[in-house]
Amino acid sequence: MSEPAPGDTLDELRAALGDRLLDDPESLAAYAVDSSRAQPEGLPIAVVRATSTGDVSTALAWAHARGIRVSVRGAGTGLSGGAVAYAGGLVVSLEAMKRIVDIDVDNRLADVEAGVITADLDAAALAHGLFFPPDPASAQWSTIGGNIATNAGGLRCVAHGVTTDVVAALEVVLADGRVMRTGARTRKNTTGYDLTSLFTGSEGTLGVITAATVRLKPVAPGQPRTFRASFDDMEDAGRAVTAIVSGPAAPEVLELIDARSVEIIEAFHPSGLPSPGAAMLVGQTVGLAALDTAEAIVAVCRAHGAVEAEISDSDSLLEARRLANPALTAQGLRVSCDVGVPVAQLATVFRGIGELAERHGRRIAVVAHAGDGNLHPTVEAGESPEESAAAELVIDDITRLALSLGGTISGEHGIGSVKRHELPWQQDAVALDVQRAIKAALDPRGILTPDRSI
Amino acid sequence: MSEPAPGDTLDELRAALGDRLLDDPESLAAYAVDSSRAQPEGLPIAVVRATSTGDVSTALAWAHARGIRVSVRGAGTGLSGGAVAYAGGLVVSLEAMKRIVDIDVDNRLADVEAGVITADLDAAALAHGLFFPPDPASAQWSTIGGNIATNAGGLRCVAHGVTTDVVAALEVVLADGRVMRTGARTRKNTTGYDLTSLFTGSEGTLGVITAATVRLKPVAPGQPRTFRASFDDMEDAGRAVTAIVSGPAAPEVLELIDARSVEIIEAFHPSGLPSPGAAMLVGQTVGLAALDTAEAIVAVCRAHGAVEAEISDSDSLLEARRLANPALTAQGLRVSCDVGVPVAQLATVFRGIGELAERHGRRIAVVAHAGDGNLHPTVEAGESPEESAAAELVIDDITRLALSLGGTISGEHGIGSVKRHELPWQQDAVALDVQRAIKAALDPRGILTPDRSI
Repeated sequence: MSEPAPGDTLDELRAALGDRLLDDPESLAAYAVDSSRAQPEGLPIAVVRATSTGDVSTALAWAHARGIRVSVRGAGTGLSGGAVAYAGGLVVSLEAMKRIVDIDVDNRLADVEAGVITADLDAAALAHGLFFPPDPASAQWSTIGGNIATNAGGLRCVAHGVTTDVVAALEVVLADGRVMRTGARTRKNTTGYDLTSLFTGSEGTLGVITAATVRLKPVAPGQPRTFRASFDDMEDAGRAVTAIVSGPAAPEVLELIDARSVEIIEAFHPSGLPSPGAAMLVGQTVGLAALDTAEAIVAVCRAHGAVEAEISDSDSLLEARRLANPALTAQGLRVSCDVGVPVAQLATVFRGIGELAERHGRRIAVVAHAGDGNLHPTVEAGESPEESAAAELVIDDITRLALSLGGTISGEHGIGSVKRHELPWQQDAVALDVQRAIKAALDPRGILTPDRSI
Repeated sequence: MSEPAPGDTLDELRAALGDRLLDDPESLAAYAVDSSRAQPEGLPIAVVRATSTGDVSTALAWAHARGIRVSVRGAGTGLSGGAVAYAGGLVVSLEAMKRIVDIDVDNRLADVEAGVITADLDAAALAHGLFFPPDPASAQWSTIGGNIATNAGGLRCVAHGVTTDVVAALEVVLADGRVMRTGARTRKNTTGYDLTSLFTGSEGTLGVITAATVRLKPVAPGQPRTFRASFDDMEDAGRAVTAIVSGPAAPEVLELIDARSVEIIEAFHPSGLPSPGAAMLVGQTVGLAALDTAEAIVAVCRAHGAVEAEISDSDSLLEARRLANPALTAQGLRVSCDVGVPVAQLATVFRGIGELAERHGRRIAVVAHAGDGNLHPTVEAGESPEESAAAELVIDDITRLALSLGGTISGEHGIGSVKRHELPWQQDAVALDVQRAIKAALDPRGILTPDRSI
């Protein structure tokens, strides 16, 4: 893929898109990066701030004809580098396509454009007694389209699954600008290949998601409760989580925040969160039996070594959890990962991470969507390239540890550029071949987010 | 694709497979058809009764090298013609690969070979207080591999989703014999494309599923209850279903059997099922509040016109529902479909089916996984080709009706050969192109279940 010749002109694209085409220096700089630790690759040639599917189609057809690389973004909150601009490439932004087209209450479906902010859809659904289950910690900023493109997770996944579980149908623009619809509005659909799931999590490499039909759920009746249990031993906390998810008392949220993460969150935004010896579990229960359920969960925690616990009807414990990423970023701590392990391996992976911290002589702060076995360890290191490189080695070791326990290199953030070198650690050569064959079949010129994800 | 020359020899394959290669006339005839109304296409050249992934790999590499068409089968219970043998083709049967390799209770996962009978896995899981959620009516005979290849549904889908929702990982043999693993053992996994979902429901066209890791769920405590409510008006029954699935009392099973289907089932296997005026809803509730839930559902039914209802702790109502397909088949009634509509459109689709019955002058017997909006109407017709053709026209009209209501041509049986002409009615030309491009990328010689499904 060659970069566009200096003489290449945007005139044709500008004629079609007018002021939806941005190429002023400030815009190019602002759209060059995402929220990950991936290095900028240089300035794009232009940004298309699409307001319709037609705009996206026009932009891709233009780029396809010229072999210009395209990066795709919603709010730019991705943590794996998938939305970083290509030098001389085109950025397609969906942020202005933010119409909630319809909420079909009887069928519990919402039709939305890709740029709708996740929390805005959730709020619109709440007006009908429904909610949008996936809730990435970035829900106040991230978009539905970005959530779908990365198959985002969040805090409520332990009860409701991840983004792919709620996507019923998609509108997608292919690399050459053709528009396709996948899926159906029915609860069951076995017509043809599951293209909806294929494009969900494809990280901008197969097509650009412009609209979606997503499933909503009814809000549980009664007062939600939050709970907290503090442990002096990480492994005890891990065993408690395994016991909770194997037991009859089902939480809607079940998170772990280790002592170092609590310290960092409190420094960023003090909320009086008590400092645990090793880690705290925090979570939420819902439904008419929310209090009973929370009490049953706290009892499991005590049986597994919790030294202190509380149940509350305030949301502040979960608010603190949602601040983990901004708090770490504010400290300059960005070298983190997103590994997953089977839930019964939590105690083992926590022990292993402790051993790696000791061996590498670095602190590792861990927050986790514990009920899903999805961990976000962050390695403490200075901001110099040498320090970052040293921290990356620790991340690689944590990743290999998770894989040795039957785990995954990515639970919810995707691969992007940041984890691409780890892909062959998890997937066999045939599976990689198959993915690249699919990519080549749908994007033969390789313009869509090339050299990232698969 | 040319058929093998008469001189083609099975010697090489027989040398590799021994008595796992069958080519006696009885076997060839037995494996030439499946349980659908699709016409036989002729005898296969041989049947590979695989006992290992290696056998499947050997068979496909052999067929790939020679361009011989391959059909794939588990128990042959498919209803769309996907497992009918090709004349001169090779049949790969997974029925002998029926080991339940492991049940990982802590992580609620089972590792199984593709030929495990669905009900056998369910029984093995029950010994650990777990169950395998998908329960196609054929569960006593159908295999996990076949369930996955067709993304089978069943009676419990309204509560637990369809097969794709429980598949965590697959082992797949590609067209050329290479073996690939997809997915992970974690609850969340966003590493690469969702190949697991792509192969689930691909109906033998992309690869042969040889093993799977599937998710189990804990058996709900307490005594399950079944309920029945009879309606004198099909549309009332449809509105009752819409109200139930929008309400707080969630059934595990919610089926509809119309009066004509009750009559046919009772003629096949009398169980004293009372004859409803128009249709009955039958279902099941589980959990400690099963009785309360059943009572709440029956109350919704009465509010929507149910004239009679009962709650029971016997399973016989659901047994009757499971006999619908054998009972219809015993009457020679095989021209049916598998359409889906959004659940809020149930009353409308029932009215439309009634109008079509009148317009065509034919009785239409309807059973439905009502809670999912998934209908199986069967058109009554004689067994002559003319009668079958006339009945097929009614099916086409029912299918167009469902699509006009935002529905699907297949809720759970897949496309196979039987519904292939309907595919462009639901999917746009670009989506069809994309699927064929994927098929061509993964099976460039077109040997795997060609000219069926997509």
